[in-house]
Amino acid sequence: MKCLILAAGKGRRLQQRGDSKPLVPILGIPLIERVIRYAMEAGTDDFYVVTGYQSDQVRDFLKRLAERLAIRITPLVNDDWEKGNGLSVLKARDILHEPFLLLMADHLFDPHMVCALTAHTLPDGEIVLGVDGDTHNPLVDMEDVTRVKVEDGKIRDIGKGLADFNGFDTGVFLCSPAIFKALDQSMEKDDTTLSGAVRVLAAEGCAKAIPASVFWIDVDDPAAFRKAEKALLDRLRDKSNDGPVSRYLNRPVSVLFSRHLVKLDITPNQISLFSFLCSLLSAGLFALGGYLALLLGGVLAQFASIIDGCDGEVARLKYQSSDFGGWFDAVLDRYADAFLLFGLTWHLLAAEASGWVLFTGFMAIIGSFMLSYTADKYDNLMRKRIKAGGWAGLRMGRDVRVFLIFLGAVTNLILPVLVVIAVVMNLETIRRVRLACVD
Amino acid sequence: MKCLILAAGKGRRLQQRGDSKPLVPILGIPLIERVIRYAMEAGTDDFYVVTGYQSDQVRDFLKRLAERLAIRITPLVNDDWEKGNGLSVLKARDILHEPFLLLMADHLFDPHMVCALTAHTLPDGEIVLGVDGDTHNPLVDMEDVTRVKVEDGKIRDIGKGLADFNGFDTGVFLCSPAIFKALDQSMEKDDTTLSGAVRVLAAEGCAKAIPASVFWIDVDDPAAFRKAEKALLDRLRDKSNDGPVSRYLNRPVSVLFSRHLVKLDITPNQISLFSFLCSLLSAGLFALGGYLALLLGGVLAQFASIIDGCDGEVARLKYQSSDFGGWFDAVLDRYADAFLLFGLTWHLLAAEASGWVLFTGFMAIIGSFMLSYTADKYDNLMRKRIKAGGWAGLRMGRDVRVFLIFLGAVTNLILPVLVVIAVVMNLETIRRVRLACVD
Repeated sequence: MKCLILAAGKGRRLQQRGDSKPLVPILGIPLIERVIRYAMEAGTDDFYVVTGYQSDQVRDFLKRLAERLAIRITPLVNDDWEKGNGLSVLKARDILHEPFLLLMADHLFDPHMVCALTAHTLPDGEIVLGVDGDTHNPLVDMEDVTRVKVEDGKIRDIGKGLADFNGFDTGVFLCSPAIFKALDQSMEKDDTTLSGAVRVLAAEGCAKAIPASVFWIDVDDPAAFRKAEKALLDRLRDKSNDGPVSRYLNRPVSVLFSRHLVKLDITPNQISLFSFLCSLLSAGLFALGGYLALLLGGVLAQFASIIDGCDGEVARLKYQSSDFGGWFDAVLDRYADAFLLFGLTWHLLAAEASGWVLFTGFMAIIGSFMLSYTADKYDNLMRKRIKAGGWAGLRMGRDVRVFLIFLGAVTNLILPVLVVIAVVMNLETIRRVRLACVD
Repeated sequence: MKCLILAAGKGRRLQQRGDSKPLVPILGIPLIERVIRYAMEAGTDDFYVVTGYQSDQVRDFLKRLAERLAIRITPLVNDDWEKGNGLSVLKARDILHEPFLLLMADHLFDPHMVCALTAHTLPDGEIVLGVDGDTHNPLVDMEDVTRVKVEDGKIRDIGKGLADFNGFDTGVFLCSPAIFKALDQSMEKDDTTLSGAVRVLAAEGCAKAIPASVFWIDVDDPAAFRKAEKALLDRLRDKSNDGPVSRYLNRPVSVLFSRHLVKLDITPNQISLFSFLCSLLSAGLFALGGYLALLLGGVLAQFASIIDGCDGEVARLKYQSSDFGGWFDAVLDRYADAFLLFGLTWHLLAAEASGWVLFTGFMAIIGSFMLSYTADKYDNLMRKRIKAGGWAGLRMGRDVRVFLIFLGAVTNLILPVLVVIAVVMNLETIRRVRLACVD
């Protein structure tokens, strides 16, 4: 499916850096690139972008983006960009003869909304608009939003000043070419906006609405920009496989770091490496001996664990996720775990050479490893069996493990922590073996 | 595709236990079950088996087998089983109206041969026979084999006494129902053998041959039985991912064990567990101190490593491979590796408490672990990249690792072995990271 994106406006209220509004980077990625990537997630790879204000600059960027993402982007120019956005849509009249996606370069949204729209079978002559039915949506600027009145799935009226309304225009459309004729009719009444054309089709009962209660935001001014940043960061925290420490302590802090890291020229793999080096340093401090070094090491270990969340966050925010990245992070984490536990064991052995301490440290290291090893194997193979086992198990992932190490270091109670890790990790491994065994 | 199996003969020369020949177990599995499983590998699940001698006994077994393997097995009885085997084929005349596989219950072969035959499009009125062109095949009993003369892919003549021949009848056929008419014609000349019918079709140019130079054997007498056992065991040694120690030392010994283990009621998982317990005992001997315990531990570790090959061999020979089995074996191997290295480290530390020894032991344990961990992850993800890296790398798998431990224990040179393992394993992990990184 083809996709038309309107990127002609000046975006006066968001000109922090003199950039054209579509090129304003939000968490490291220009607005228009985010919109294009959303549509790509729904399978689109043929784009038509209408530029206007600072057209050359936007077109230069799009040319490079098309190469980088291996997609087709055809620029269209609307010199009348200071008039209504309906004129921008009309620039595609001679090109788009079948149903197409219509998006705004400054509207961010959940990519699922595009999938919901494209799954819709569009009768000839109709359009469908994603309408947000949450009239108390805190992401919406009530002064500026385009309001919609929907009845029985059909748009009855649309406009900025509407008094009687029950939804908002999200700016995500699926259009048939009928939109062009509707624009003509609307202009005859001196209305050059896209909303005008939607009003024409609505009067004919040809403008449908589908519910879009998920995330969307019109990035129109600095206040909206900050809201959008926050919303994108919040979405990072919805990782369902986060452990408790990760969810309530590490993640809230790491997104604050990531917010700034995305603006720097730092790759996720470099962040993974930095976190690993912090863990190594922490292990060295443990081995050094003395409470002060232990305390510092504990704090550093926890800091490294927090930073360890940033690599994935930055990768997701900047579309830099890679197979290697995930693998590299996992490999470094295994080394880091082992070194931290070895540092603690060394700390204890330096004070008193004891076979039991040595054995406990060994069992803690091997247990941590086995937990990752069995998880990796059962990710592919045994997940169902383990889940079918019912009991959620001792969910002691890396986040909890490092947090225990941190607590042990701060309270100078290392041996109990090693014992707990050794016992819990190995018991959990044995539990997994029993669950996986259904032969 | 349907499959007809001839299992009516007495197999006088192979009556070790008074069993009917199709039920004689070879390496733990009855001959006819192996043949049925070969056909299943090619996608067949609808079988017709002609029984004769000790018919009830064979049918009882087939009934249970059909339930166990969730396939359909329809028994047909040939009371004239003492006459030519063509009469057995005729029992299926009213049932098989489309092309079908025709196999002998006492012929073992490479299942790929069935795939090669079924990939063949069979014109109406024709048959295809897998013909072994290796006239010096040591698995063939030259006195008893049915000889074939092939020209331009067509069978010209077939028979036991043939003087002019260039191949052997493997007993693996793809037949159209024309075979039944050919049998009638052959019987009019008083020839009740299947070969007689093939000769009739050959005269009409309707009997084709496809080359089958791979493994096949007619298990007809005790000599052939021993050859077949040996051939099945030899095929276990073709595991391409075996390391050098496994290939030249462990595997040749483990197949000797497996040959006997298959006849006992022992599961592959029980063998894995036994090998693991041997490793644990070995680690305990290491930790005990003293050269004698070290020596015993080293021998036991190597013994465990050899036995560790038997679980997979028995599983493959007895069709008991399972996802859990492979996973369970891998998990136990990781524990075993860690305990062996920990035992050695303990041995050294008991003699002299040294930080360097402790660190070396730790690095050896972590390195061994990382090698398995990265391999497991790159099996799914990074294999191509690592292979594209060109250099075959330091192929120090578990077989080499345990063998080094054995050598170190026997020669009482533990520290050098720990150093080598620590250095090689961790360097190889770093090498893999560099190869996998193509970002």
